[in-house]
Amino acid sequence: MREPTPEDKLVGRICRGFPALPQAGVRLGAGDDAALWQPRRGYETILTSDWFLEGSHFLRDLHPPDSVGWKCLARAASDIAAMGGTPRCFLLNLAIPALHTGKWLDEFLGGLRRAARFLKCAMAGGDTTKNERILINVTVVGEVAKGYAVLRSGAQPDDLLFVSGRLGEAELGLRELQLSKGSVRKNNATIRKHLYPKPRVALGRWLAENRFASAMMDISDGLSTDLLRMCEASGVGAVIAEGALPGPKGVPASEAAKLALHGGDDYELLIAVPAKAVKRLKRNLPGRDIEFVGAITKRKKLLLSKGEGITEELVPGGWDPFRK
Amino acid sequence: MREPTPEDKLVGRICRGFPALPQAGVRLGAGDDAALWQPRRGYETILTSDWFLEGSHFLRDLHPPDSVGWKCLARAASDIAAMGGTPRCFLLNLAIPALHTGKWLDEFLGGLRRAARFLKCAMAGGDTTKNERILINVTVVGEVAKGYAVLRSGAQPDDLLFVSGRLGEAELGLRELQLSKGSVRKNNATIRKHLYPKPRVALGRWLAENRFASAMMDISDGLSTDLLRMCEASGVGAVIAEGALPGPKGVPASEAAKLALHGGDDYELLIAVPAKAVKRLKRNLPGRDIEFVGAITKRKKLLLSKGEGITEELVPGGWDPFRK
Repeated sequence: MREPTPEDKLVGRICRGFPALPQAGVRLGAGDDAALWQPRRGYETILTSDWFLEGSHFLRDLHPPDSVGWKCLARAASDIAAMGGTPRCFLLNLAIPALHTGKWLDEFLGGLRRAARFLKCAMAGGDTTKNERILINVTVVGEVAKGYAVLRSGAQPDDLLFVSGRLGEAELGLRELQLSKGSVRKNNATIRKHLYPKPRVALGRWLAENRFASAMMDISDGLSTDLLRMCEASGVGAVIAEGALPGPKGVPASEAAKLALHGGDDYELLIAVPAKAVKRLKRNLPGRDIEFVGAITKRKKLLLSKGEGITEELVPGGWDPFRK
Repeated sequence: MREPTPEDKLVGRICRGFPALPQAGVRLGAGDDAALWQPRRGYETILTSDWFLEGSHFLRDLHPPDSVGWKCLARAASDIAAMGGTPRCFLLNLAIPALHTGKWLDEFLGGLRRAARFLKCAMAGGDTTKNERILINVTVVGEVAKGYAVLRSGAQPDDLLFVSGRLGEAELGLRELQLSKGSVRKNNATIRKHLYPKPRVALGRWLAENRFASAMMDISDGLSTDLLRMCEASGVGAVIAEGALPGPKGVPASEAAKLALHGGDDYELLIAVPAKAVKRLKRNLPGRDIEFVGAITKRKKLLLSKGEGITEELVPGGWDPFRK
């Protein structure tokens, strides 16, 4: 028999070393025309895709290949977490230069495998081709108990707004990475947050299963931009208390607030909590790493409260590839 | 309230006019972090992704935008057909230059909507961003009755090989399109086969539901390359009868055979049929547009029988982006 084609050999290399398929609900993985998947009984399937493109989302010379591998899966999995679901398997679509099928690919796959194991997410297939620039698109398939998915569109006036973690750290980490010209000190927490974000799967699931959230989404393009999306989907407005924003540590307060409002790439959760659930939530808060930042309003405006009665309009300043 | 962001406005435009979500099993479509999907009871989910890249898979100046829209969905749906399944919904991942958000996008969406309606396949989400070159990746989600999916790996020695339609027509159509410098005569059947392929969904499903096929895949990179893949997956070899190949009409016989063996982009089906099912299949063949082309062998070689006892090795000559 002749050898497998060069493409098939590459695909074989790519598929090795990921979490086992059966545990992830995958009956048939990579190597056939398509994959076969089934969620657990009583669960429905969640589907999401994300671009991760050289030049737009990462830079070949700045970002270590293992970070590219980690992040392309982590950021797509974050959309599953934002529905209250659990990522289970993914399709990797990879287009790379022929010159990058060696060391670059090995390191990329190393980061991807680490993320897959961290998330217990199996590689179920995808498509591989050649391209001058590195192009990545990841589809993540997850599951959520029927009727428990938390949408963007459920926020109601007087719901309180919470966010997880610290916002703006990833943006600050990107700046520090640029200043360091790509040399990564592995113990720099903000750079690590930019390179290896951890989607809030356990937190999202806990909030959904306990029906704490009326609306939820992940903050990927910056709070100001993503909050606008939640408010539009829900037909409401919101006010954010600037003083309550959990921004990055070690920077001046005004800069920290700007980073927290507009910095992208955090993959934290934005959560609307109905007033009647707040007390129950607060009893369970310790150790959960979420903080109050504002409230949903009936008036369809985005406002920033700066304290002492001063309120201004909150202008979306997050990431948008089509903004002029 | 402020306006939606430019990206969100674009996404809104993209999502209009596709088949209805509930009929396709989609509980929640585009516009949230992710989509929610559930197949009918007794079915499992099929997942597949395909690249469709400017420069590799199509040319901006040669291929009409509505063909790009049609084909990006049709070719991914073909992988679902090749499992014996039915495409149900898809995620569109689109990266386009800002200049292409007008007329080009409208025509692209026109072709995509036509394909979606033809396939009864709903738009369930995806990701949109900006890029100098047009990048497309489509994930198609389908369903198949549990236990009825037909894999590549089931071919057994002495199974007969069949293919659907005429092979090599799409390759010939591409050549004619190049000669005509992109001016498409809409009634040219080979050019239309290249521009608007129709995946064999009904045929694939019929073969799977009646258990006629031991192995099946779609022929996207050329018969010689895809047959190698089926044989490797099944641990067998095959012999193809050159004289039996249904090549394009109106070209010399030797050229027609070459086109049928190595031409890509046909999205026809390659089907292995167990000897004991052949009689039953043949009774149902009339009108089904499939033809006998060869047989599976125990000996792990790919052979081409040229008649009068002359047999030579069949060298995979189909499309492979990583072949030097």
